[in-house]
Amino acid sequence: MKIALAQQNYHIGNFEYNTQRIIEGIAGAKALGADLVVFSELSVCGYPPRDFLEFEDFIRRCDDAIRLICTHADTIGVLVGCPVRNPDREGKDLFNAAWLLYEGKVQDIRHKTLLPTYDIFDEYRYFEPGFEWNIVEFKGRRLAVTICEDIWNLGDNPLYRLCPMDKLITQSPDCMVNLSASPFDYAHAEERGAIVRANVDKYRLPMFYCNAVGSQTEIVFDGGSLAMDASGRVVSALPFFSEGIVMAELTPSGEVLPCGPDDAEVAASATPLTAYGAPSPALGGASAAGASTTADPNAPALVAPARVPKVVTAASAGFSRLDADILRPELHIGRIHEALVMGISDYFRKMGFSKALIASSGGIDSALTLALACEALGAANVRAVLLPSPYSTEHSVADAVALSETLGNPYDIIPIREVYEAFLHTLHPVFGDLPFSLAEENLQSRTRGNIMMAIANKFGYILLNTSNKSELATGYGTLYGDMAGGLGVLGDLYKLQVYALSRHLNRAAPIIPQNILDKAPSAELRPGQKDSDSLPDYAVLDPLLYQYIERRQGPAELAEQGFDPALVSRVLRMVNTNEYKRNQFCPIIRVSPKAFGVGRRVPIVAKYLG
Amino acid sequence: MKIALAQQNYHIGNFEYNTQRIIEGIAGAKALGADLVVFSELSVCGYPPRDFLEFEDFIRRCDDAIRLICTHADTIGVLVGCPVRNPDREGKDLFNAAWLLYEGKVQDIRHKTLLPTYDIFDEYRYFEPGFEWNIVEFKGRRLAVTICEDIWNLGDNPLYRLCPMDKLITQSPDCMVNLSASPFDYAHAEERGAIVRANVDKYRLPMFYCNAVGSQTEIVFDGGSLAMDASGRVVSALPFFSEGIVMAELTPSGEVLPCGPDDAEVAASATPLTAYGAPSPALGGASAAGASTTADPNAPALVAPARVPKVVTAASAGFSRLDADILRPELHIGRIHEALVMGISDYFRKMGFSKALIASSGGIDSALTLALACEALGAANVRAVLLPSPYSTEHSVADAVALSETLGNPYDIIPIREVYEAFLHTLHPVFGDLPFSLAEENLQSRTRGNIMMAIANKFGYILLNTSNKSELATGYGTLYGDMAGGLGVLGDLYKLQVYALSRHLNRAAPIIPQNILDKAPSAELRPGQKDSDSLPDYAVLDPLLYQYIERRQGPAELAEQGFDPALVSRVLRMVNTNEYKRNQFCPIIRVSPKAFGVGRRVPIVAKYLG
Repeated sequence: MKIALAQQNYHIGNFEYNTQRIIEGIAGAKALGADLVVFSELSVCGYPPRDFLEFEDFIRRCDDAIRLICTHADTIGVLVGCPVRNPDREGKDLFNAAWLLYEGKVQDIRHKTLLPTYDIFDEYRYFEPGFEWNIVEFKGRRLAVTICEDIWNLGDNPLYRLCPMDKLITQSPDCMVNLSASPFDYAHAEERGAIVRANVDKYRLPMFYCNAVGSQTEIVFDGGSLAMDASGRVVSALPFFSEGIVMAELTPSGEVLPCGPDDAEVAASATPLTAYGAPSPALGGASAAGASTTADPNAPALVAPARVPKVVTAASAGFSRLDADILRPELHIGRIHEALVMGISDYFRKMGFSKALIASSGGIDSALTLALACEALGAANVRAVLLPSPYSTEHSVADAVALSETLGNPYDIIPIREVYEAFLHTLHPVFGDLPFSLAEENLQSRTRGNIMMAIANKFGYILLNTSNKSELATGYGTLYGDMAGGLGVLGDLYKLQVYALSRHLNRAAPIIPQNILDKAPSAELRPGQKDSDSLPDYAVLDPLLYQYIERRQGPAELAEQGFDPALVSRVLRMVNTNEYKRNQFCPIIRVSPKAFGVGRRVPIVAKYLG
Repeated sequence: MKIALAQQNYHIGNFEYNTQRIIEGIAGAKALGADLVVFSELSVCGYPPRDFLEFEDFIRRCDDAIRLICTHADTIGVLVGCPVRNPDREGKDLFNAAWLLYEGKVQDIRHKTLLPTYDIFDEYRYFEPGFEWNIVEFKGRRLAVTICEDIWNLGDNPLYRLCPMDKLITQSPDCMVNLSASPFDYAHAEERGAIVRANVDKYRLPMFYCNAVGSQTEIVFDGGSLAMDASGRVVSALPFFSEGIVMAELTPSGEVLPCGPDDAEVAASATPLTAYGAPSPALGGASAAGASTTADPNAPALVAPARVPKVVTAASAGFSRLDADILRPELHIGRIHEALVMGISDYFRKMGFSKALIASSGGIDSALTLALACEALGAANVRAVLLPSPYSTEHSVADAVALSETLGNPYDIIPIREVYEAFLHTLHPVFGDLPFSLAEENLQSRTRGNIMMAIANKFGYILLNTSNKSELATGYGTLYGDMAGGLGVLGDLYKLQVYALSRHLNRAAPIIPQNILDKAPSAELRPGQKDSDSLPDYAVLDPLLYQYIERRQGPAELAEQGFDPALVSRVLRMVNTNEYKRNQFCPIIRVSPKAFGVGRRVPIVAKYLG
């Protein structure tokens, strides 16, 4: 039996577009001679649909899409992901399901058992966990069909009290098929490879694994679909960060053989992403992502990881593999680069926008954001605005100009002095002669935010935000000022990672001027200001933030790790008391296992370490 | 056995404060002669602690608090809510638990079974569901101890596949005890009364029900703790929206008798709310809420409601009891009033602030917000700023001045013309001679936002936001302009409800000038502008929004209800395409079953009805 994996980039709630893509994928699989084509989790509606699932109208549209797809599942079996109603009186209204369509009919529906409900995931909010496990029979073969998280419960510290493959294996399946929507983070591709292999090793069965690709607001799906034989060898694989179809044959004896055209050819010939539906002005021919990295799923198997940091015990508080991520960002920086480019590109395309606006300060954060945006959208579609204040240094403007000259994007220089002074004059009756303070610093930042939004509104740009994770963590930013924007490009990168990625971009030719990389970071909101006036050195701050945010280490553990307790107390207080600012921040492209935003939910009104 | 119910207002993560309150509650119950005192769900850490639960440090502080409380649980039994670690290798790390402390020791720990994971609730994110059910024995009596949601699975369409009381009833308990953190919404007190009674009726047992009180960021807990005998009679009850202790006796024959001082006396003599810990400048003597309404739990029992709208079927799409809420807001307006006052007051007190700033436009939304803030914080602590633009009408300023003169709060008048013109002049090189457009409207609004934030930053005010739910739903507001602020006071009230509440405030004496109630709503950002230029009449818009947002009705159902299909399409598109704005909005005091914010999670990048 020849099984094709269709790795596609869906648009949440855009049934017309998603159905069209799936039908194109079916046609592509037919052309390859496949018996069965597998799509990713909730492919019909896009993942994650979130509270749209509470609308009966939305579920009806899912049903309609399934009916239409059925008519194309005539001579080929189709496994698609789609919600299905729970027919029982009790339990949540829906299951997260895999549908087998064949000969124009729904042949079988299997329910997801393990519902990820942590970090960015909310599946138990919508779905009843599956509680019956049956093999799917197709053309005489017995398929153990599972959905994403279902295969992730093999670690030392399992999140769930049951394991659906343990049930299915008793029914003598011939292979495993998994429909996933497994998001990117800089360590997750290895974890995913390891978990697929751990399942293959445990159950001694081949695995056909189909993952989604594409960015959905803040969540980037990176693909990497693959077919692995029972010995753990990757037979066929699709690249990360692009669409494609690949096929492998499950022989009668249970071997998995490559078949169909060469993977790379298939990926290249895959249907290009089309516009997401009128009236979206599609980007002029830009493809979804930058250069694709081919997966290396034959890398040595790791121990199957715990899926989520459960409450970290003191015993486990030492440095782990994950700790290396912040200390050696260069390990993952190429992937972060691709994820950010796809995150920007998909945001614009799916929202129906094409033009970005960026406040270019001459600092490293705006320089990197600008370079990434030019790569994602084309330099002609990215407009930089330089907004010098009375406290800006000359080199700031010169560096920002040099950057745009290199990138080739349009830019304007708009000094903010006149508006800033009008604010001070207008506020004089209230402020009197009180000394210069944070209020005046914020006023400059908000004047800039206001100018940027005015230009964005006037000409239809989307303002990209340049704040990094170190700033967002500590509250070192101005709400409605430099924290304004529609999408946070660097909000999941600590400052050290911003430098690492900037060096990565400069690896072949200098894109970001060396002066921007070399100078000390400054907000330039008062004379001679430096970040280090208000914040610890990033070389100390970033590892501390990482241990607190990604690793959930508390004051005692951080002191054990050698951080100064007074510094720990000060920094943790900054993080927790600034939640109100992050709460009003735009979506952040997620590249780490714990980004600010939908995946990190802490109370605003609280007094914990604050 | 005498059982006391301690209804208290906790501060999330403030273990020192919460422990002190619980110890005071124990002392109060001892003074009344109680054998057992019951506190609310997760009382030790405050509810909802959200992702703080992922920190081992946080759980250790919970343990420490329990140890300290134990030393006071010497001659009296104490039932408190606190997380407990899951000792098993499998499953989530924690249980949401009720701890019985007595004779200085932990006597028993019972686990919550039904974990609400919908709307504002995320409990399955953190907790393993309980899977063993045992009676708690205390002084020879058998208590069926459950936690909040555990008693809510009795409806026609149960959310869960099991019911913990069905397990416990087989062990012959003498009574039910429930520790709750059940939030306010304008219909929920009735639902809660009905569900307590439905349990009493089904199991023929008395119920001792202890709920939390107080506001936690956006979620208001309204109290209403009570003891009900097996016949469904409320024997003792605590008021809504204030702290207190009440007691009732469970006789050897299973009767429930009132005992201890009169309810009202107890409520009045309850320990006043103390400061939440240095360095919070506590409000000068202001109590947590306005006048308290006494519960009417003896109202006729309703059918036990479905806890959450599951996917609404076409058959159920007609008008229901809930539909009356938007059409007859006066039914609930008194409670909404109390909830908003508590929401403002607790936000400031728990954040350690005392002074509010409000942009006062002369319109109904800012007028109502100002009146509520003066009630919550004292008029001297609320500063209004009038910010007339070149397009403001004279009566706007006059009305806003009249309002502050009536309320007695300080106010300033700061015209925005100079700053607005400086912006236009600064932007001229970019804007050229393009005609006046939305950009210029937003510029005025953001100039105001900037001035308000500057004053707030300079003097330590918190800016209160005045946007209503109709505006937020349709995107009729300016990000970083009139959408700025730390807390959304009216963000869960449709415009019709804003009018209803304003009339309610004026019921005894005119507080809000009649002219503000009478004039047509306008943003006054261009000459002669009216809301009705951009939006349908609120009399049509609000019921439509209610059906879509609260009732999850889709286009087909709305057309069936008689709404014009073209209008439906236009309005639903406005709601869905403006999610990006709401995503950057501040927390909103929640008074409805479906508020914007943490309880409503929809994708930003999507194309559903948009």
